[in-house]
Amino acid sequence: MNAELIAVGTELLLGQIADTDGQYISRRLSELGVNVYYHTVVGDNPDRLAAVLRLARKRSDLIVTTGGLGPTYDDLTKELICREFGRKLVRDEESLARIRAFFEASGRPMTENNLKQADLPEGCTVFANDWGTAPGCAFVSGSCTVAMLPGPPRECRPMTDYRLVPYLAARADGVIRSDVVRVCGIGESAVEAMLRPMMEHAVNPSVAPYCKLGEVELRVTARAGTEAEARALTAPAVEAICLALGDAVYGVNVPGLEHAVVEALAAKKLTLSTAESCTGGLVAKRVTDVPGASAVFLGGVVSYANEVKQNVLGVPAETLAAHGAVSPETAEAMARGVCRLTGSDVGVSLTGIAGPGGGTAEKPVGLVYIGLCVRGGTRVSELRAGSVNRGRDDIRSLAATRALKLVFDAVK
Amino acid sequence: MNAELIAVGTELLLGQIADTDGQYISRRLSELGVNVYYHTVVGDNPDRLAAVLRLARKRSDLIVTTGGLGPTYDDLTKELICREFGRKLVRDEESLARIRAFFEASGRPMTENNLKQADLPEGCTVFANDWGTAPGCAFVSGSCTVAMLPGPPRECRPMTDYRLVPYLAARADGVIRSDVVRVCGIGESAVEAMLRPMMEHAVNPSVAPYCKLGEVELRVTARAGTEAEARALTAPAVEAICLALGDAVYGVNVPGLEHAVVEALAAKKLTLSTAESCTGGLVAKRVTDVPGASAVFLGGVVSYANEVKQNVLGVPAETLAAHGAVSPETAEAMARGVCRLTGSDVGVSLTGIAGPGGGTAEKPVGLVYIGLCVRGGTRVSELRAGSVNRGRDDIRSLAATRALKLVFDAVK
Repeated sequence: MNAELIAVGTELLLGQIADTDGQYISRRLSELGVNVYYHTVVGDNPDRLAAVLRLARKRSDLIVTTGGLGPTYDDLTKELICREFGRKLVRDEESLARIRAFFEASGRPMTENNLKQADLPEGCTVFANDWGTAPGCAFVSGSCTVAMLPGPPRECRPMTDYRLVPYLAARADGVIRSDVVRVCGIGESAVEAMLRPMMEHAVNPSVAPYCKLGEVELRVTARAGTEAEARALTAPAVEAICLALGDAVYGVNVPGLEHAVVEALAAKKLTLSTAESCTGGLVAKRVTDVPGASAVFLGGVVSYANEVKQNVLGVPAETLAAHGAVSPETAEAMARGVCRLTGSDVGVSLTGIAGPGGGTAEKPVGLVYIGLCVRGGTRVSELRAGSVNRGRDDIRSLAATRALKLVFDAVK
Repeated sequence: MNAELIAVGTELLLGQIADTDGQYISRRLSELGVNVYYHTVVGDNPDRLAAVLRLARKRSDLIVTTGGLGPTYDDLTKELICREFGRKLVRDEESLARIRAFFEASGRPMTENNLKQADLPEGCTVFANDWGTAPGCAFVSGSCTVAMLPGPPRECRPMTDYRLVPYLAARADGVIRSDVVRVCGIGESAVEAMLRPMMEHAVNPSVAPYCKLGEVELRVTARAGTEAEARALTAPAVEAICLALGDAVYGVNVPGLEHAVVEALAAKKLTLSTAESCTGGLVAKRVTDVPGASAVFLGGVVSYANEVKQNVLGVPAETLAAHGAVSPETAEAMARGVCRLTGSDVGVSLTGIAGPGGGTAEKPVGLVYIGLCVRGGTRVSELRAGSVNRGRDDIRSLAATRALKLVFDAVK
C-alpha cells in the first residue's frame, strides 16, 4: 500500500507551524508496513487543494489528510474530497450529539457554524474525536482509501493511534506489535553505534530509533499471525537492547520518564518534592502530568528570586554570597531545604543559566547544577547543556529530563 | 512569485525527522513577499523525485529544494534537477577547495565520493556553505528560479538567511506584512462568527484565524510596495478586530500570553508569585519561559499536598476542613499566602481537579478555582474546563491560560 499525506493549512505554508502531524503519521504507517511516498502541504485554497487531491488519487492507494475539518469557512477538506470522489456530505447525528455535548460541558454557546463539523461523506467510517470537536473519517473508493484527521497535533496524534491505525490494521493480515524501550543519558549516535548490527539486519522484528531532546526511543516492531507469536519475536530483541544499554534504559512500554519516576517512587513508598530555579516549575509540571502523582509528589518551590531561596528554602545568605545562586553549594542547600520544608523523602533541585542572557566565561549559558537529597544524604550533578544550536527552551527541557533521570536512578 | 519547497529524503517519509526546514524557509519567504503554495516531501527515489520536479516546474516560479546534496549514491537532487532543466553538472574548483579545507581542518581523510559535492549546475550562483561541506546553488531557467540547499537544519537555516534570502531579495515584488492579534477567552467559532464579514471579504489585507487551546490568533496580512503602505493596509483591520473583540484581545504582535503578562507587570513595576495545586508548576513554567522573567517573577509554590498548603502557604486547617482543597476559600488563602511568603505585589493561585480521577457530582473534573491577590485585595474566579473530550493535559493548560489572562487583566 502506497500512501500520501496531505496537510491542509495556510499557517503551514506561512511557516507559523511545522508539519509535525506528517512525521507522526509516517511513523505509524511505516510500522504497519505502509510505504509513505509523498507528503504534500497545501493552503486553504480550493483550487490548489482540489488539484492536489486529484494528483494524489492518481499516484497513491491511501490518502491521509490532516486539517481543514473545523467550523470556519476556510475549512474545506471534506467538501473538496467529496467533490473529487463523488460523494455526498451528510449530517452524522452521532457526531452532532458529541459536538453539542462538548459545548454543553464547556458552558460555551455553540454557534451555528459548528454544525458543519458533523457533516461527513456518505457511507464513511466515522472516527469519533475524543480529543476535540471535529470528527475524522475514512472511506474506500475503488482502489483508493481516503482518511481525514483533524490538524491540531493534540487531536491528530490520538486520532492516528486509536482511530486510523486500528482502521488500517483491520484491513491487513495478522497483527503488529510494537515494544518501546526508553533510553535517557546516551546520545542517539552512541545508541546507534552500539546497536547498529542489530538494527541493520533486523527485519521482523524491526528496530527503529527515534530521538527526542535528551532521550532516545527504540521501537521494536514485529508482524505475525497472532499477538503471542508477535510477542515471541519482539521479546528477545527487547532483552538484547536492555542488556546492551544497561542503566540508560529507564523503562519498556512506559509512557515517559515522569511516569517511570512516579512508578518507582510509589513502588518504594517514597515521596518527592522539587526546588527549581532555572527550570521555573518545569520538573514539578512534568511530574504532575502523571495522573495520580499526588500519591508521591508533595509539592515544590520555584525559587526564582534569591530572597525566595533564602526565606522559603533556607539557603544560607553566605552560601549565595560566597558561591553564587548557580553553584553546587546552592543546589545542595535547595534540595536539602525543600525536603525540610515539605517533609519529603527525596528532594531534587535545579539552579543554572537557561539563557539567552546571564552567561559568563566561568558560568556559561547551559550550566545547570542538579541537587539530590535522599533521606538526608545529598549529591550534586553538573550538566553543561549549552551549544550554539540550543535555545532557552531546549536547555530547560534537557535540565528537567536529566533531573528526572537522576531521581529515577536514585530511587531505583 | 509563487514558490514550492521540495524536501528530499526517505528519513522524512519514515517519520524519523520532521520537515522543520520547510517551516523555516516558509517563514523567510513569506517575509520577502513570496507566496509559498506547496511543500512536497519525497524520498531518495529517482523516478518519484524527477516527477515531483517536473510538476513543480509547471506550477511554481520558484523551487527551493532541501537535502540530497551530500556525497553518497542516494544524494540525487542536483543530478535530477540538471536533467529536468537541461543543464550540465560541472566541477566548481572553489567549492572543491573549500571541501578539501574542511576535511583538512577536521583531521579526517577525504574520501573520493566527496568530490561530487563540488559538481554544480553550469552557470549557477554558488551558495558557499560555511556550516558544512555541501554547497548550495541557484539558477534561473526561463520563468523558473531553482535553488538548492543542504538538508541538515543547522546548515539549512544559515544557508537560508545568508545565501538564499539575499539572492532572492532583489527579485521579490514588494513586501508582505503580517500583524498578529492574540485573543484569549472567546472560542474560535465565536470569534469567527463575530468577524465573518470581515474575514470573508478581506483580500488585502487577509484575515486568518488560528486556534490554540484557550486562545485564538488572528493574522492580518497585507501586500504592498513598501512597508509603510503595507502597514497602512493592516492597521485599520487590526483596529477593527480589537474594537470588536474588546478585552479578549491581550496583545498585537506579542509572542504569547506569558510575554504579555511579563511586559504588563514590568510596565507597572509589579512583581508576581504563583501558588499552584492542580497545574503543578505549569503557570510558573510558562512565566519563566520568557527570557528576563526574573525582573518581575519572584517564585512560586507547588502545593500539591494539603500539608504544603498549610505549612508553606499558611492556608488555615479550618478552611481546608470546612471547604476542601478545591474551593474558593482555599484558592483565596493560597493567593494571599504566596504574596505574604514572597513579598510579591501580585499572587495567583490555582486549585482544582485535573482528572482523570477525583471528580464528584458537586466538584467535577475540570473545576478549577483561580485566586488573585493584588496588593492585599483578593478575588476568586471559577473555571469549568471539563468535558467528555478533554484530558488532564488540556484541563491543566486551559487553567494555566485562564490564570495568566486574569493576571494580565488585573495588571492592565
